[in-house]
Formats: sequence, structure tokens, C-alpha cells
Amino acid sequence: MRSDHRKIRIVKSYILDNLPLKKAILKASKVIEPFVHRTPLLSSENLNQMFGCDLVFKCENFQKAGAFKSRGAINAVFSLSADAMLNGVATHSSGNHAAALARAATLRGIDAHIVMPNNSSQVKVAAVKQYGGKITFCTPTLSSREETLQKVLNKTNATEIHPYNNLVIIAGQATAAKELIEDWPGLDIIMTPVGGGGLLSGTALATYFFSPKTKVIAAEPANADDAFRSFQQKQFIPSINPDTIADGLRTSLGNITFPIIIKHVNKIVTVSESSIVEAMKLVWERMKIIIEPSSAVPLAAIIQNKFDHKGKKIGIIISGGNVDLDKLPW
Amino acid sequence: MRSDHRKIRIVKSYILDNLPLKKAILKASKVIEPFVHRTPLLSSENLNQMFGCDLVFKCENFQKAGAFKSRGAINAVFSLSADAMLNGVATHSSGNHAAALARAATLRGIDAHIVMPNNSSQVKVAAVKQYGGKITFCTPTLSSREETLQKVLNKTNATEIHPYNNLVIIAGQATAAKELIEDWPGLDIIMTPVGGGGLLSGTALATYFFSPKTKVIAAEPANADDAFRSFQQKQFIPSINPDTIADGLRTSLGNITFPIIIKHVNKIVTVSESSIVEAMKLVWERMKIIIEPSSAVPLAAIIQNKFDHKGKKIGIIISGGNVDLDKLPW
Repeated sequence: MRSDHRKIRIVKSYILDNLPLKKAILKASKVIEPFVHRTPLLSSENLNQMFGCDLVFKCENFQKAGAFKSRGAINAVFSLSADAMLNGVATHSSGNHAAALARAATLRGIDAHIVMPNNSSQVKVAAVKQYGGKITFCTPTLSSREETLQKVLNKTNATEIHPYNNLVIIAGQATAAKELIEDWPGLDIIMTPVGGGGLLSGTALATYFFSPKTKVIAAEPANADDAFRSFQQKQFIPSINPDTIADGLRTSLGNITFPIIIKHVNKIVTVSESSIVEAMKLVWERMKIIIEPSSAVPLAAIIQNKFDHKGKKIGIIISGGNVDLDKLPW
Repeated sequence: MRSDHRKIRIVKSYILDNLPLKKAILKASKVIEPFVHRTPLLSSENLNQMFGCDLVFKCENFQKAGAFKSRGAINAVFSLSADAMLNGVATHSSGNHAAALARAATLRGIDAHIVMPNNSSQVKVAAVKQYGGKITFCTPTLSSREETLQKVLNKTNATEIHPYNNLVIIAGQATAAKELIEDWPGLDIIMTPVGGGGLLSGTALATYFFSPKTKVIAAEPANADDAFRSFQQKQFIPSINPDTIADGLRTSLGNITFPIIIKHVNKIVTVSESSIVEAMKLVWERMKIIIEPSSAVPLAAIIQNKFDHKGKKIGIIISGGNVDLDKLPW
């Protein structure tokens, strides 16, 4: 995987203030509104007592297709020009972006070509099919995924929609934090997990624009800590063979998400695999909602006392709820 | 178990209209309001498309102590006179009523004596302890439970709070349907599961008083079909050795719940064990909420086409979300 990531050149001169990103987020809110849920906030007195802070959870597990990815996918697909959408969209993904993009394309009446590894879970393959995606299977390596996607792009002339390293996707994901800020003002901290950084960079931008006093803290599995290390060293260091139960967080940052994160995120902390499972089970048991392992990573950071959370008002974005119920980690 | 239930004499002359039950429900709403959640309604376009009807779920799995039982328990404990509460309350229960009663008593500053079978799940024992209940263990037979409870009552002079065969409990449980009717008017059908009949009789009364055009349909495991058979034959027939995964529904109707059900419930249908598991997993997967097996029984009736649901607006009361996550039925 390293060879691939070496190709990424960080655009150091990336200047946020020159980009109309605030407008892009406001526009995304309007674009996606007819097609996604304004998801509810939930809290648990039980968890608040347990951890000595006020936690509020933005429930993107209740989002269309079961994850925040629907926001970015809808924004990207519905922002395409008539020309760009003519031959459909394409991506490679084994996860939530695949289903979200398939759904978005079907809603706009265009094709979605999804390259999936041939070892993808049946649940995820079924979801992409259900939403009308056209699947091309490949061997489960990054190089095979990219080569296969390139062949699909050459053949179809579809527009590639990257799962996170894309400003239109990021503006879409930013709407989750924007809603959280509107519905629960005065937060001290907003937390997200971090994988490729689409949700985190969007959240950091929304917080910067709409609640600048709120800090943004990201949590990452220690076993896939590229964002943590890149953030500490202020240079891009990709993950090598990340091995974490948080399957949505195995990707590395991109050259668009990284500089936004460097500029607008206050802290990145890492958590153990056992604390992720503990946090996930705690939310299932106490809050009676299904969250996927990636979504448990911020609470795991609180369990592990990774930052000063006592007495704070903390909003946590629950990224999704797509779990294989036949393969639970306990 | 039969010998015990023979003792129950159905009070055929039980005349609802002479009882101020509507007032009792309105009062219960006020009594419980500071101590329970007004639980949210959720729906799923996915499930609606699948079954060809409009389903709305009243999420008592998000209720305090994880089940609707908190409503009745709070109403019962906070309706006790100063004399009656002096020596605390007592019940025998291995389930949600035990935790709910312990919580209610602790909130009112009195003791809750809970008789629990010594094979109760550790999760449930922990919940009762967490809420401050004083547990007396007994051997896991109904006669031992009742004898042990009698000893506890003799020793403590506590007031017994029956889990369902008690009008104050029923009035408390009725508030769930009352809220559902207020928040989602115009329902064609309201559904609940049926075990001892506390939730069902309360729901039937609330529907009669507040939405008289709405039909009430109850669903019951075929393996614990005392309510179905009693309803069909219009005479009380207790369950004998009920064996169902829906652990909240193994109890038989009581002499207070049965006549209310006979008078105000439109239909009772039975469902298979496999359809209960299928419905439970479907709700977990599609709605991303944790519901216990008993709560899946109404949807199982829709899966099994047990009544004419097509095109109907149907409210389903999700009774609770207390599940042992280490012992899932799939």
C-alpha cells in the first residue's frame, strides 16, 4: 500500500480562505435536504454519569444507507453538471461510500459503477445491489482496485467520485456537524473518528465556520494511526497494513483532507482495539442503538481518558450503523 | 404452573365504564412525566416498502431502564399513600418490571424488595442492583417465587406491586399508546405484544378513550398462546410451560387484564419463533435500534401476513431493548 500513497503530494499551499468553503457547505445543506435525514441527537444520562461529562450523539447510523456517507455522495452526484453525469459515476469501495454512491446515482437516474473486492461481505454487496449499483469485482488489493477502477473509467467514461479526497464530498459530510451545532449549540468539543478524513475535515470546517469556540478532537485506532502520526509530525505518513476492527478507518488521509485537518483540528488521539469493542458494546447496551465499530472510536477515547473530558459538553458524530450481525466482536 | 393459575377467578362483572380509567390514564401521564422519557417515534421507508404499509414505532426500548415497564412502576410507586409506601414495595420478577420497580422506589426514597429466580441472567441481576433493589433469590419455579415473595412481604410489610394485574400499573402502561396517538394521529391499527397483558390492556384503554376509530391488534408467540386461546374462547386459559424466545411474554393474562382485553382488543394473532427472530434481526439491521425478542412479535405478525396490513397506518409499541448481547438468537 505504501507505494500507492507515495504518489500523494501534499499541496502545502492549499489556502482555505481563498476557497468558498463556507458557501459550499451552506449549498450542500440545501442540495442534500430532500434526500437525506436530518438525523436525531440522542443522549444517555447513564453514560453522562459514568464519564462525568455531557455527551450528545449525532445519529448518522440512522442516516439513509446507514451512514454519513450519504451526505457527501448525494452532494457530489447532485452537483455534477449535465455533461459530467452523462456517463454515470464510479468509485472503488468495499464500504459505506459504495452503497451511498449507488443510492445517490439511482436517485439522479444515472449509473453507479462500483469496484468491490471479491472478498467484500455479502451484506455490503447486497446493499450496493439493492441501491442499483453496477458492481465489478476485483482481487482485494489496493492496486487491483485502482487498476480495475481505471479500466471501468476508460470503458464507461464515468466520473470518479472519491470517497473522501474531494471537496464536494467534504462539504457534504460537513453538514452533519452543521446540524449538530444548530441543534445543540454551545458544545465545548465535537468528536469524530478519522479514517480518510472526509468526515473529520468536513466537521472541522463546519465547526470553524459555525461554532468557532468549539474544539474538534478526532479519535483513531492505534492500529491505523496514520492521521495521528501525520498530525503530530505535520507531514503525511500513510498507514501500512492497518489492522483494526474499525473497518471504516483503515484508509489513510488524502492530500485534500490532510491540510484541512492540520489547520482546523485541535487534537487527534489514538485508542486500543479493546476499548473500541468496549465502547461499541456500551452504546448498544445503554443507548439501545446499533453503531458500527468505527463509530465507537470517539467514546473509546473517553473511556481511555485520552483528553480532558470532565465537565465538558461533547458532541460525538456516530458515523454509521452498518454491522454484520452474524460477526459481532464479543 | 397450571395449579397456580387455577386460582385466578375472572371477574366477569368487571365494568370498565364504572371505573374512572380515563382519568387514571390522564393522571398517570402527569405523575410519570418527570421520571420517564416521552420516547421518540421512528419509521423506516425500507420496511414500509418491504411490507406495503406505513409503520411507526414507539420506541420504549429508549425508555428509562430500557422498557415501557418504567411507566407503570413509576405510576404505582408515586401513587402510593404515605402509609402504603412506609415499608417499601415488593415484587417477584426476573425481567424488566424488577429493574423498573427498583428504579421507581429509589427515586421515591423507599425500599424495593425484588424476588428473583437464582438462574436470572447476570445482566438483569446487575440492573436491579444498579437501581438500588434489594434482591432475595429463590429457586426458579413459580411456587418458589410466590412463597419467597410472601415471606418477604410478611417480614417487611412492604406493598406488593404486581407487574401487570394492577390497574395503576395498567394506567401507567397506557401512557405509551396515549403519546403515540398524540404524536401520530390517524392510525388505523395499534399493535403491541401480549404476555401478562399490562401493556396490551393499557394500550386498548388508551385507544378506546383517545382514538376510538383505531383498531388494536396484539401479537403473541404461538408457543405461549394463552392470550390468543383465552381471547378466542372468551374464557381464561393459562399458558402451560410456555417456551418462547420472547422472554417477556411467557406470563399468562390476569383477572384484571383479561376482561379489558376481551372488551377492547380487536384481534390477537400468533407467530412462530423463527418469524420473531427474523423480525428482530430485520429491525436491528434496517432501523439500527436494539429491540428485545418480545418487541419483535408484532412485526413478526406482519411478516407472517397474520392480518390485513396492506396500505394501513400501523403504530407498533416497541416494548423494550434489554437483550443479553452475548446470547443473540442468530
